[in-house]
Amino acid sequence: MEYTVSQIAEMVEGTIEGETNRIITHLATIEEGKEGALCFLQNPKYLTNLHSSQATAVLVPIDFMPKNPVTPTLIRCQEPYLQFVKLMRQVAKPAKPKQGIAPTAIIEPSASIPDSTSIGDLVYIGANTKIGENVTIYPQVYLGAEVEIGDNTTIYPGVVIYHQVKIGKNCILHSGCVIGSDGFGYLQDNEGKHIKVPQIGKVIIEDDVEIGANTCIDRATLGTTKIAKGVKIDNLVHIAHNVSIGENTIMAAQVGISGSTRIGNHCMFGGQVGITGHVEIAEKTQLGAKAGVTKSIKKPGQILRGGPAQPLEQQLKQEALQRRLPELFERIQALEEKLVKIQSST
Amino acid sequence: MEYTVSQIAEMVEGTIEGETNRIITHLATIEEGKEGALCFLQNPKYLTNLHSSQATAVLVPIDFMPKNPVTPTLIRCQEPYLQFVKLMRQVAKPAKPKQGIAPTAIIEPSASIPDSTSIGDLVYIGANTKIGENVTIYPQVYLGAEVEIGDNTTIYPGVVIYHQVKIGKNCILHSGCVIGSDGFGYLQDNEGKHIKVPQIGKVIIEDDVEIGANTCIDRATLGTTKIAKGVKIDNLVHIAHNVSIGENTIMAAQVGISGSTRIGNHCMFGGQVGITGHVEIAEKTQLGAKAGVTKSIKKPGQILRGGPAQPLEQQLKQEALQRRLPELFERIQALEEKLVKIQSST
Amino acid sequence: MEYTVSQIAEMVEGTIEGETNRIITHLATIEEGKEGALCFLQNPKYLTNLHSSQATAVLVPIDFMPKNPVTPTLIRCQEPYLQFVKLMRQVAKPAKPKQGIAPTAIIEPSASIPDSTSIGDLVYIGANTKIGENVTIYPQVYLGAEVEIGDNTTIYPGVVIYHQVKIGKNCILHSGCVIGSDGFGYLQDNEGKHIKVPQIGKVIIEDDVEIGANTCIDRATLGTTKIAKGVKIDNLVHIAHNVSIGENTIMAAQVGISGSTRIGNHCMFGGQVGITGHVEIAEKTQLGAKAGVTKSIKKPGQILRGGPAQPLEQQLKQEALQRRLPELFERIQALEEKLVKIQSST
Repeated sequence: MEYTVSQIAEMVEGTIEGETNRIITHLATIEEGKEGALCFLQNPKYLTNLHSSQATAVLVPIDFMPKNPVTPTLIRCQEPYLQFVKLMRQVAKPAKPKQGIAPTAIIEPSASIPDSTSIGDLVYIGANTKIGENVTIYPQVYLGAEVEIGDNTTIYPGVVIYHQVKIGKNCILHSGCVIGSDGFGYLQDNEGKHIKVPQIGKVIIEDDVEIGANTCIDRATLGTTKIAKGVKIDNLVHIAHNVSIGENTIMAAQVGISGSTRIGNHCMFGGQVGITGHVEIAEKTQLGAKAGVTKSIKKPGQILRGGPAQPLEQQLKQEALQRRLPELFERIQALEEKLVKIQSST
Repeated sequence: MEYTVSQIAEMVEGTIEGETNRIITHLATIEEGKEGALCFLQNPKYLTNLHSSQATAVLVPIDFMPKNPVTPTLIRCQEPYLQFVKLMRQVAKPAKPKQGIAPTAIIEPSASIPDSTSIGDLVYIGANTKIGENVTIYPQVYLGAEVEIGDNTTIYPGVVIYHQVKIGKNCILHSGCVIGSDGFGYLQDNEGKHIKVPQIGKVIIEDDVEIGANTCIDRATLGTTKIAKGVKIDNLVHIAHNVSIGENTIMAAQVGISGSTRIGNHCMFGGQVGITGHVEIAEKTQLGAKAGVTKSIKKPGQILRGGPAQPLEQQLKQEALQRRLPELFERIQALEEKLVKIQSST
Repeated sequence: MEYTVSQIAEMVEGTIEGETNRIITHLATIEEGKEGALCFLQNPKYLTNLHSSQATAVLVPIDFMPKNPVTPTLIRCQEPYLQFVKLMRQVAKPAKPKQGIAPTAIIEPSASIPDSTSIGDLVYIGANTKIGENVTIYPQVYLGAEVEIGDNTTIYPGVVIYHQVKIGKNCILHSGCVIGSDGFGYLQDNEGKHIKVPQIGKVIIEDDVEIGANTCIDRATLGTTKIAKGVKIDNLVHIAHNVSIGENTIMAAQVGISGSTRIGNHCMFGGQVGITGHVEIAEKTQLGAKAGVTKSIKKPGQILRGGPAQPLEQQLKQEALQRRLPELFERIQALEEKLVKIQSST
């Protein structure tokens, strides 16, 4: 990128305080900003960084007042972080496969692929699979038979999508994620052997979903594993068969959701959370990292933590008291000794 | 699928109660069953669903008595769920690569591949690797040199099997699983640098094993990492070098087993369980989700939970008492105050 | 391999006690050693195994004195384990792709690939990517645009490296690991929808790093996710955006590090550890398996365990006292009853 400070100010509808002709060559965090960098300051916590910053310009809130003179040119604007993210979007242009079908891609003849699609080298696309408009499929992706991919979706290298999975519009699937693998279901016979229950259901992923690298989403035994629109899932997450995840729910890395569990809208789960099977999690539930959920959570909007998870305040109190167990044992012993003395004296 | 109710009844050796000529077009759970669906009812918990179900027919136990009249035709049979699973098996037929070797597969000339094998596009098969009869290898799989794959095994897209790994008969390997990667072993030098210990052992996976998507099983340092017959492993599990897992043991997603640990037959581990290295787990041990095991478990057949894991009853009691810690602190304080009063009054 | 005992003794600069002409055909652990095996004994814990061993020869410390006569020939040497590892290194020679570029690899014309490189079948290498000398790239690897790979690095099948990632010299990347996928960052709008923050930063992996199978390392939002030289990371680990990991730190499988956390040099983390975002972990910190870290750890060299993690001794004491909670409740009840008696008697 190369813009003058004035050009940036125009783009963010901001006003300039300082030199207007300096050249912006890249975006950076305020801690790392050097000559040529545009940064932003929204959180007053980073004010110190502004005062020491060598960045060329910084987006700041309209009413921002620096305590001391600063080196960077200030650009005052509405919602500096949001404006900055918009600029990032312009800069973020990873090389993608050319429009059309790479000559080494293997496409079954019955697959339907519009001209606007980009399909990279060494991709495999199965029979009767339908690709939407402006879809980008990077090299070495596998799409099984009867898959549907919605418009504008991006699929990074090495993604595997089994047969009969449906992916919505504007989705992003990161490398190594596996969608539609068999759910983990067995019948046990009298000798303790596990007889496989065939997994003949589907996966439906709605619009605007992002799925992290090496995340696994199993197909349903019967029916559907469903990821509703706007859900964001981080890396190495496990979603078991017949799970349903509500709109705009967000899950950090290494979360595991067991079979048939239903999760509401707008939930937020920290990393390494685990939820047992066949339970329901109310909407807007927030689970701290590593929380273990063994029962349904019925009341919406709670913040929980711990294993088994409980409301945050209660959990924090319990953790604090656990750390005081040595003191507790001492106090009990002191009480016992006093009582012995009292009893022997009476 | 398309069968009449009578045909289904014949297949499951059942007797019909209701209309016999209705058409079954698909299988479904009793909650989701609509016109054309065949469902099953084994667990009385779902009786309500039967009464509200719009399914065409339902497999029920021979002695089943509905409380009220029901819409679906009932088919009475032995073990409805087992019969239903058999029907699912007939329906489950994902498109697989054609018999023979796809033209874009790369096969080293010394590999041995019988005519009954199906090898998909863009597969790589290394030198001296031997494939059994009726094996299905989906596109983009990698098999290193000197690998052996037993009869009737299925390997889904994107699986990687390093050199000298042996896989048994009737196994299923899901996408993205990695078998035979190096164990994690280093010697530390005086400066704290880690010197790699070469990993020159093997992996042996016996018959009837299923391995989940993106699961990793490391090769042994020396000797063998062994997965015995009938073991079922879910997604994103980590099995370290030199681990041995006994027959018919089953592990849910995101379990991690550290190096050289030996696990008995018929164990069952919940999701996100972790077991330390160099310990032994007795047969039929059951570990609740997220359990952390730091010592050998010598007594067979126990159910354990928690971190460090302990027998379930003990763990549940401890968890309950932990939640009562605030009460405990109050009771102690009350005791201390009473004692002060008693002492001052005597 | 095939060596006489004398030849081995020469290689390890050792002295022979027993027959010198026996033939060594393979390396084994002392527990498993049979005819033809060379083993080592460094830890006296395995002395029993030596006495029962059928191995042909065993490397032992110079001053080693067996209690009873032993079957294997003894080879006395300095640091038997280290010598043994050196021998392992000679034996460990997995088949690798031939030098040169396999005919089915897809290489963008602007990529730079020296003659000493081995590039396997079905590899994709993006525009302007630079490969160092003696690099080995196994089949089906993906390297995006503007990637740099240092000399002597090995990349196993199915690895995905996104654009603009830099990998150092002598690194080993195991199958299925994903380097440079998008960090997990969103802005929430007023309706609770998550707006993607573009991830336009980089990943830098320095020299001598090993990365396990299916591990994910996200690119920075802005700036760099950095893995310093000598770091060793096991399978299925998650490293979030903008994390920095110090030299020679080592992480067992399934660890998760949240965004912007900075980890010092020479740390050691057990399996399934989780660390929250935006904290600092002092050098030489050791975290027990499953530890959960929610705050910065400022004092170097501590050993911590538990969730939230605390110093080991404290945590072990707390765990022991937690197991004694039933006793504690009984003691309190006894105290309360005694007090009631005392009060009623006074």
